[in-house]
Amino acid sequence: MKTTVIGLGLIGGSMALDLRKAGIATKIVGVDLNPANAEKAVALGLVDAIEREDTAIATADLIILAIPVNALSHLLPRILDTIKKHAVVLDTGSTKRMICRAIANHPNRGQFVASHPIAGTENSGPEAAFEGLFKGKTNIICEKEKSAAEALALAEKIFSAFGMNTIFMEPEEHDKHVAYVSHLSHVSSFLLGQTVLDIERDEKNIFALAGSGFASTVRLAKSSPDMWAPIFEQNAEFLSQALLEYIMHLQKFQYYLMKRDGKELQRIMKDANRIREILNGIEYKQIKQVQEK
Amino acid sequence: MKTTVIGLGLIGGSMALDLRKAGIATKIVGVDLNPANAEKAVALGLVDAIEREDTAIATADLIILAIPVNALSHLLPRILDTIKKHAVVLDTGSTKRMICRAIANHPNRGQFVASHPIAGTENSGPEAAFEGLFKGKTNIICEKEKSAAEALALAEKIFSAFGMNTIFMEPEEHDKHVAYVSHLSHVSSFLLGQTVLDIERDEKNIFALAGSGFASTVRLAKSSPDMWAPIFEQNAEFLSQALLEYIMHLQKFQYYLMKRDGKELQRIMKDANRIREILNGIEYKQIKQVQEK
Repeated sequence: MKTTVIGLGLIGGSMALDLRKAGIATKIVGVDLNPANAEKAVALGLVDAIEREDTAIATADLIILAIPVNALSHLLPRILDTIKKHAVVLDTGSTKRMICRAIANHPNRGQFVASHPIAGTENSGPEAAFEGLFKGKTNIICEKEKSAAEALALAEKIFSAFGMNTIFMEPEEHDKHVAYVSHLSHVSSFLLGQTVLDIERDEKNIFALAGSGFASTVRLAKSSPDMWAPIFEQNAEFLSQALLEYIMHLQKFQYYLMKRDGKELQRIMKDANRIREILNGIEYKQIKQVQEK
Repeated sequence: MKTTVIGLGLIGGSMALDLRKAGIATKIVGVDLNPANAEKAVALGLVDAIEREDTAIATADLIILAIPVNALSHLLPRILDTIKKHAVVLDTGSTKRMICRAIANHPNRGQFVASHPIAGTENSGPEAAFEGLFKGKTNIICEKEKSAAEALALAEKIFSAFGMNTIFMEPEEHDKHVAYVSHLSHVSSFLLGQTVLDIERDEKNIFALAGSGFASTVRLAKSSPDMWAPIFEQNAEFLSQALLEYIMHLQKFQYYLMKRDGKELQRIMKDANRIREILNGIEYKQIKQVQEK
């Protein structure tokens, strides 16, 4: 199956590696706006060759889109205009309402499967790609009834070959939940990093005093702004709501802190400790899925 | 050297293991208010035996205090009243102003070394203790000129045997910096966990949608409220200042988010990306210190 991967970063590159390993992609061509990234992707063996975007789209049996979500909303309608009959297009974007809306009435809507494989690291670019990134993780497919049966079947086969568990959601529901469990984490991490950088102008203090806890909490502040700004913009309402609730919790905590109300601080933290079972559940789920493969 | 460890949790237990391994402690007795923890500490081999607090204090050559910082401020003056001549007392607390103030005029002040080995995990209790927890990390000693030369020398020998790099700071300076690089991370993590738990009443959604980024950001929300509430209370002014700045950054981000000002969001995130070098520096520092041992 001739496969075209558009966007040769962490996600696109890792999908290319897994698609080849699974024997699904026989020839993989890449497209990237950044010529340096395109060159690296070939040198790293992520794709066999680089092609012009129009040729790569017109000749592919399978197209993987792994570009920022704003570019996605513009490009996808054009892709659906020019793909081969029976070709299948998958996206990997972290927001789903905008993209589904962008092609809602397109005559080739059925050839597209709106997907969000929930995986990643704080690193970006072709060098960040690796085989097995998706193993044991969850994939979300939205509006499955709007994809043709064969397109949906191919998408499920691909994500299953990656070791992922696919679940189905409506775009609205998806965007709301990811605002809380993913986008908010990124914002909190970026701004925690910013707060510390602002005050600790002498970096030696951060080096000396920061422990593994700090490193874990601000790890996501290393993430790519080019990728995340469009996600945040597309999910602005839900994310803003999540941020407001987070800020309210922080302000309440600060209020009890200034009152030196240790009992109430302790109660709040005990309540938050329930996250322990959730985190254990996440680990358990991932281990179980890997074992089942 | 007969060593008494008061508080047999993650820190006290790990120090006991490292003190024995380094050959500094020949006999180690433990004290813990919680009889179940005391029993576990013996069963796990962290300490040789449990003793009554008064006996354990009066007969020790070295006393390690690894209890919550509020208990520390109460207990330390009583300990300095009753210790053997030339015995040395070290604490491990995450705040340093209160403890230094509590014994500022004590006649045996010189036998105490105010320490903060910056190490830990989100787990607590004797089962969480392990050998090597401190390796490659930083230790802070405050008011070193107020400790007797022999006491300071023993403390430095101990932390060096653990593989730690000791630096010196004034208590005020210490408390201010840790508010930003440690305490704020914990608060942000607890309340991020709380925000998500509040909205995602159906835990299945969190399990399905949360990726490794979320897990990393809320990991610290598993931390012990009994330990952290007193730290936050003792460092309330500095922490409150740090929280205010963090909240201001979050609100500014929310403002640009609602304006759909992607350029400004991107600028903020690019700025926060500078944390990348800091985190690389922390890793580099830890690797280097371990290699040098």
